[in-house]
Amino acid sequence: MTPPAPDGLDGTVLVVGTGLIGTSVALALRRAGVDVLLSDVDDVTLRVAQEAGAGRPLQPADRPAVVIVAVPPRHASQVLAAASRDFPEATLTDVTSVKQGVLAEAVSLGADPTRLVGGHPMAGREVSGAAGARADLLDDRLWVVTPLPSSGIEHVRAVHRLATACGAYPVEMGAADHDTAVALVSHMPQILSSVLAAQLIDADPDHVRIAGQGLRDMTRIAASNVPMWSDILSANPGPVADVLDGVVGELQRTALALREMAGTVGRGDGPSVVTEVLTAGVAGQQRIPGKHGAAPSAYREISVIVADKPGELARLFAAIGDAEVNLEDIRIEHVFGRPSGLVALFVRPEAGERLIDALATHGFDVRA
Amino acid sequence: MTPPAPDGLDGTVLVVGTGLIGTSVALALRRAGVDVLLSDVDDVTLRVAQEAGAGRPLQPADRPAVVIVAVPPRHASQVLAAASRDFPEATLTDVTSVKQGVLAEAVSLGADPTRLVGGHPMAGREVSGAAGARADLLDDRLWVVTPLPSSGIEHVRAVHRLATACGAYPVEMGAADHDTAVALVSHMPQILSSVLAAQLIDADPDHVRIAGQGLRDMTRIAASNVPMWSDILSANPGPVADVLDGVVGELQRTALALREMAGTVGRGDGPSVVTEVLTAGVAGQQRIPGKHGAAPSAYREISVIVADKPGELARLFAAIGDAEVNLEDIRIEHVFGRPSGLVALFVRPEAGERLIDALATHGFDVRA
Repeated sequence: MTPPAPDGLDGTVLVVGTGLIGTSVALALRRAGVDVLLSDVDDVTLRVAQEAGAGRPLQPADRPAVVIVAVPPRHASQVLAAASRDFPEATLTDVTSVKQGVLAEAVSLGADPTRLVGGHPMAGREVSGAAGARADLLDDRLWVVTPLPSSGIEHVRAVHRLATACGAYPVEMGAADHDTAVALVSHMPQILSSVLAAQLIDADPDHVRIAGQGLRDMTRIAASNVPMWSDILSANPGPVADVLDGVVGELQRTALALREMAGTVGRGDGPSVVTEVLTAGVAGQQRIPGKHGAAPSAYREISVIVADKPGELARLFAAIGDAEVNLEDIRIEHVFGRPSGLVALFVRPEAGERLIDALATHGFDVRA
Repeated sequence: MTPPAPDGLDGTVLVVGTGLIGTSVALALRRAGVDVLLSDVDDVTLRVAQEAGAGRPLQPADRPAVVIVAVPPRHASQVLAAASRDFPEATLTDVTSVKQGVLAEAVSLGADPTRLVGGHPMAGREVSGAAGARADLLDDRLWVVTPLPSSGIEHVRAVHRLATACGAYPVEMGAADHDTAVALVSHMPQILSSVLAAQLIDADPDHVRIAGQGLRDMTRIAASNVPMWSDILSANPGPVADVLDGVVGELQRTALALREMAGTVGRGDGPSVVTEVLTAGVAGQQRIPGKHGAAPSAYREISVIVADKPGELARLFAAIGDAEVNLEDIRIEHVFGRPSGLVALFVRPEAGERLIDALATHGFDVRA
């Protein structure tokens, strides 16, 4: 958990906007020994951040080496442009989750394109929760760094060091590349989850009742923060629409194949299309890296039946700890209306037999 | 885990087809003290089931009270019709996962519609794995019972008792109703997951690399058994195509809204459509029952940072056990390339503070 040393992040850093992300970044920088300046249009918010130890308020004489703009997305371009004028030497960066529009607009508003480098710290789902700022919010997270073609190398390096100082892992790509990537891996899944969940609104309760784990997994992110996601999707409409068109095309092809199979349109290649769609899904899923970069299929799944009472999971994990086996993942399967559960444990293949033996020794009901 | 008594499941039960489900049902019935007969076209499979203690081979003089047909879906109708002729008094049921087609075809092939009652034991995802038959495979699972309008009440009751004897929970609905339900809660999620995952096939590895938990959850079931799912979808094409049409329509509306927002078509109600789609997703997701039938939003989420080394999860769950708090759900969030994890614990709201205190006492890094 200890973050790497800041590695030459010299001078003070100004954080503009002391909301959840801004204050968390400031706390992480303070933890790394960086001198942090804070500013916010809201005095109360600023004082809360200051009292949390996130830094000291910006004074007119201050000359930060780096300015991080962590204001709401719709204000980011303007604030970047203003910071460029106020601090004519500083590296300028932001934390918005869609990059192309905000950077282009900042430059058009007068931000110096040689000092501007975009950033997207990927804090994960807890960001939308009510949790307060934390110094460790970005520990072990990816922080996408998106330089402009005009960005000076020293400014790009400064943003890399900033990410590292916050405990995150910098990953560099172009702004357009970033937006295409998040359209595919983040924005598209959100839309599919929302649209799937919306189908349940008018469904018979008895139909919803027989839902299994698949529907639960597929609709989890539908329980999202609507204003936040509206803003995100609004900032990336083109790339998301492009991915969506591809998905809609495949779904239409699948629907046509199913209609053929239902006999309502002329018989054709229905079954082979369905098989093709499923096969492509298997191939695509295998491209997602596992927890340590390993392919997910590299893990062995071992299922255990656990009684749903206090202490049973403790007993299970104590047995796993005794076996000195490290879990790569856990899933608990839900069974409607009954106090018991199937727990799926994922381990590296070489640890599988050892774990099974240990669980059996402890009297667990194992389904290897 | 102890199943209820068979409650009057009198006489012998014949299981036709000793694959995973058939043998598991047979073992569960044996566990409940029922006299079980076995038959399979494959002598080797039959002998394996017999040696596992699943029952004794059917003899010409046997007169089972109930016949459960657990053969591959494409043979089920024929086998039901044959069983109807061979055993003119027996209750006839099956275990296929789509009901209307198989039952209608069985009747058209001569199965007695007064003695035929469909069934769908919902064994969950582990069924597609390589795991062998287990007496407890259906413990605590739902078993959908689908009578025909012509089914005699004593035969419907016999299938309910059969499900109960196997440790499962019978839920009764019409065959058409069942097929509509599974199209929505099971078959549609499978198609969406497969099509989403397929979009990753040609994606830049750097793009896939920044995927978070949302994409992982949404593509988990894409790693499916292709022949099994081809058969399932092929057996329910109409209802699945109907749900798919609704989803495609909503996705097209969303894509159009995004295109409007991207400025490539005339400005319109883009942002409000996107907000509407997200809002409907939140409402739909709330309709899914929680583990004990409670709404998912009824749980409090408490996140903990756990070091990725043997024993840490054991320490966490020991602390939870000490607090006498029962977990409703657990999720482990993955972070690319780093050995540490955020564990999300879900508990009933009244247990939240107690758990937070207990975890803090044990030195855990809690993000309530």
